[in-house]
Amino acid sequence: MSSDRLIYVPLGGAGEVGMNAYVFGYGPKGRERLILVDLGVTFPDMDSTPGVDLILPDMAWLAERADRLEAIFITHAHEDHVGALGHLWPQLKAPVYARDFTARIARNKMAEQGLDEAQVNVVKTLPETVAAGPFKVQFFPVSHSLPEASGLVIDTPAGRVVHTGDFKVDKTPGVGEPFDPEMLGAIGAEGVKVLVCDSTNVHQPDPGRSELSLAPALSELVANTRGMVVATTFASNVARLRTLANAGVENGRSVCVMGRAMLKMIDTAQQAGLLTDFPSTISPEEAKAIPRENLMLLVTGSQGERRAASAQLSRGTYMGMTMKEGDLFLFSSMTIPGNERGVIHIANALSEMGVDVVDNASRQYHVSGHPNRPDLEEMHRLMGAGVMIPMHGDHRMLREHARIAIAAGMRSAVVTNGTMIDLTGDAPQVVDEVPTGRVYLDGSQMVGARDGVIRDRIRMALGGHVLLTLIVDEDGVPLGEPWAEVMGLAERGRGGRNLAEVLEDAAADFLDRADRKTMNDDDKLNDALRRVVRQTCMEELGKRPEITVVVSRLVDG
Amino acid sequence: MSSDRLIYVPLGGAGEVGMNAYVFGYGPKGRERLILVDLGVTFPDMDSTPGVDLILPDMAWLAERADRLEAIFITHAHEDHVGALGHLWPQLKAPVYARDFTARIARNKMAEQGLDEAQVNVVKTLPETVAAGPFKVQFFPVSHSLPEASGLVIDTPAGRVVHTGDFKVDKTPGVGEPFDPEMLGAIGAEGVKVLVCDSTNVHQPDPGRSELSLAPALSELVANTRGMVVATTFASNVARLRTLANAGVENGRSVCVMGRAMLKMIDTAQQAGLLTDFPSTISPEEAKAIPRENLMLLVTGSQGERRAASAQLSRGTYMGMTMKEGDLFLFSSMTIPGNERGVIHIANALSEMGVDVVDNASRQYHVSGHPNRPDLEEMHRLMGAGVMIPMHGDHRMLREHARIAIAAGMRSAVVTNGTMIDLTGDAPQVVDEVPTGRVYLDGSQMVGARDGVIRDRIRMALGGHVLLTLIVDEDGVPLGEPWAEVMGLAERGRGGRNLAEVLEDAAADFLDRADRKTMNDDDKLNDALRRVVRQTCMEELGKRPEITVVVSRLVDG
Repeated sequence: MSSDRLIYVPLGGAGEVGMNAYVFGYGPKGRERLILVDLGVTFPDMDSTPGVDLILPDMAWLAERADRLEAIFITHAHEDHVGALGHLWPQLKAPVYARDFTARIARNKMAEQGLDEAQVNVVKTLPETVAAGPFKVQFFPVSHSLPEASGLVIDTPAGRVVHTGDFKVDKTPGVGEPFDPEMLGAIGAEGVKVLVCDSTNVHQPDPGRSELSLAPALSELVANTRGMVVATTFASNVARLRTLANAGVENGRSVCVMGRAMLKMIDTAQQAGLLTDFPSTISPEEAKAIPRENLMLLVTGSQGERRAASAQLSRGTYMGMTMKEGDLFLFSSMTIPGNERGVIHIANALSEMGVDVVDNASRQYHVSGHPNRPDLEEMHRLMGAGVMIPMHGDHRMLREHARIAIAAGMRSAVVTNGTMIDLTGDAPQVVDEVPTGRVYLDGSQMVGARDGVIRDRIRMALGGHVLLTLIVDEDGVPLGEPWAEVMGLAERGRGGRNLAEVLEDAAADFLDRADRKTMNDDDKLNDALRRVVRQTCMEELGKRPEITVVVSRLVDG
Repeated sequence: MSSDRLIYVPLGGAGEVGMNAYVFGYGPKGRERLILVDLGVTFPDMDSTPGVDLILPDMAWLAERADRLEAIFITHAHEDHVGALGHLWPQLKAPVYARDFTARIARNKMAEQGLDEAQVNVVKTLPETVAAGPFKVQFFPVSHSLPEASGLVIDTPAGRVVHTGDFKVDKTPGVGEPFDPEMLGAIGAEGVKVLVCDSTNVHQPDPGRSELSLAPALSELVANTRGMVVATTFASNVARLRTLANAGVENGRSVCVMGRAMLKMIDTAQQAGLLTDFPSTISPEEAKAIPRENLMLLVTGSQGERRAASAQLSRGTYMGMTMKEGDLFLFSSMTIPGNERGVIHIANALSEMGVDVVDNASRQYHVSGHPNRPDLEEMHRLMGAGVMIPMHGDHRMLREHARIAIAAGMRSAVVTNGTMIDLTGDAPQVVDEVPTGRVYLDGSQMVGARDGVIRDRIRMALGGHVLLTLIVDEDGVPLGEPWAEVMGLAERGRGGRNLAEVLEDAAADFLDRADRKTMNDDDKLNDALRRVVRQTCMEELGKRPEITVVVSRLVDG
């Protein structure tokens, strides 16, 4: 037994916000039995991943060791924790464990990919325990921005690990379990070797605020609105939806929920018995018959998503509803970095309709689901772990979180995706680097982040694309003229002439002068024509487009 | 004279932050003599303008009336106010007026485009007056985030207009004139008919803070740093550069400025005699010989620009300097919405090197150059105008600014790009809508925002690009097989086969069955092949790429 070790290796989520996937292992070196905590996605953007549908963590390393994988634990139902389950489970094929609400969402993910929902097992909170090889795992409730978020107590022969999942310190969260220092203290009192802890808000110096604190300001905002009130937040934040809906009802408004994702989340929470006191709502059909001063809509699209209800309202009508002068639109949310352009676009479009747009600039209409620095310090104290490993955050967040832990007397290390550490002793030791990365779901296909496919798209987006086709006979003599097609480039160049024609003339000029050796060598001819196109584009446009040359060599049949 | 009118029409900057261009006119309807205030650019992004170099306001309307344009006034040297001068002056050909520092930058813009620098005239602050047709224009100093920012007093036969330019309320701005309520009150006391006013920070509820307030916190931050300190801010914010440099010198550090734009701005400010007390600096060559604890670098790239010094340091070495554990990197700046991804990328890359990265989250290391709500209210009071027209801001900002003015008893209207208002009477009246828009500088060429060029790039970025080429003889009989090239698409489709081969087979299958009529009609054949490609891509990839089909019809010579 003395050669057994406890290892930890994040495959996603450590050094980034998104696609969480954390592996723990216990056993002899290279033969550890493994568990996986969370299997999430991250979202693409035009800068780095245009056209991509979802970004998944590369599970190749774990898939090769799937025979050693005992179980997959999902801490909560956010996409960055469960979104990759359906896509990646076939590579892993281990039983999945989650609490009821999370399991319902996880089963949907399995079903969407035609997988067996029964692989997802429902677990209650501690003391219920899942035995997974050498691991004994218990779920404990934490407050977060959706129902039934959990941390994990992971007992191993080498000692106890606590993985916090995502959490906030909120003693009145509206929906879901409040932050419970007594329960957490009891977990800590039994001795925690290693705390693996959320780092998202480590740079926020003030203590986090409670969901309950939003109610008065929201109610006042609704009371002061003449026309219709439309509010958006994260679809899964059913506590916020309840706070918002209550603010509507208090002010004599009927509440209508719009947007598939939001309806689904409310429905799931109600089915799970977690949302018994949500005000009764009306359908969009019923809403149309109600005066706008008596109406409150809760809609999807807080991040500016182009197809969500918010964006559709900003472009005109959504399900028969239209906003106008006197109405209020509330972003009861924060903007995830990178989504600003889309959110601002919607806010301005609504403003142009005469709608008052309110966001959380005044910090009255949204609270975060993650622990600020003082909240982290409270968690550290409650757990009393010897080692704190920061997770769930950009590198800068992990680094700051480790610094705080070390200052408080813990040992810590910044462990990013792919770094394997040995936690058996008192101090974490780096023992390996394993391959990690990102895989893109692109339409129905998986594309590797380094396959060059997305790089080519970005190049076409930056430079346009020029196609030049030429037919030559078996002796290398051109049959007809070269033909150019341009896409995504100015129609005319510096000389004022049509660019395609200039390119064709330049290619024809080159062919007139080209020697036999070039004309008879496909690669040489292709390269030479590519050079002609490149140089002409630089002269005419000052740009470097992508270039595709197709030389067809017709062999007389 | 009674038929003369005073008009205002923004051609850029009203309903957006960027590319400011405001036209005022006075005279008989349709024959007003015109002046233009500012001629700026805005910056492209991958979401909407991939590959574009600069976005300029469309000056077509004004260019058609260039014979009526008396003058161009530039309020200050930020790119969103002067950046388009060189590109668009040839359409306008009116004399340019600016204060010394701004004129130096404006002359560079002219020279870069091979234009006559002498078109830019230097004007002193009031009482110096430029007569421009019926307008008498005086520059008055305002505090902002670069030297010699100005507002304009525009006296017309219909009364006085005050155009604030960009300003902040800062009585100790470090470099440049402090906010001067006495001077502003005197302008107001002479009677202001219309105030045209910066709206950028209208949603900020607290009074703006002074540049001077940053000095203690910056000095403390530098004092507490073990290694090298590297700070970035906007290149033109020479007051901040001075505050930062002083913080370095106070702590026994030599200061080295890196990045072309920053050196240029400091040099220009010094040449204009505006920066007499900037600490002496050392060259990067000299910096290499100095221990890092005695060194402070001021670098470009606060917005995450990929080629700036910050980004280069985050990727490794810049001009011989490398950051490492113990060093500090400070963003003494705010992130312009839309630039978050780039900034976060740099912060994380530096953190991975062991560098402590500090930004303005604590609000200790940056102040804005624009007026917050209480500052706007102060300006409103000082001017005592009957009408306040909000400018320089998103629609939502203009709307809120107008609301505040109306609540304070002024008349106001949200006037966005292209809306012409008549300011002759007591209340602004909308009298016309003129064509406006955006023009893209793309390499050396101008591309219209609606030309479809950029739309094609975005489509290729989202969907990839498939090319299918086919040669047929004069009887419509295929010569050889169809040939497919794909760019920016997964190599293999659902069936696991090479996508190009699947496309070629699908096209060949189609050709086997195609009737003579289709084969002899170029358009029909092209459309049919396009449909085959589209359907195959949907089946194989679940994607809709851009498709280019080239059918070459070989006529026997």
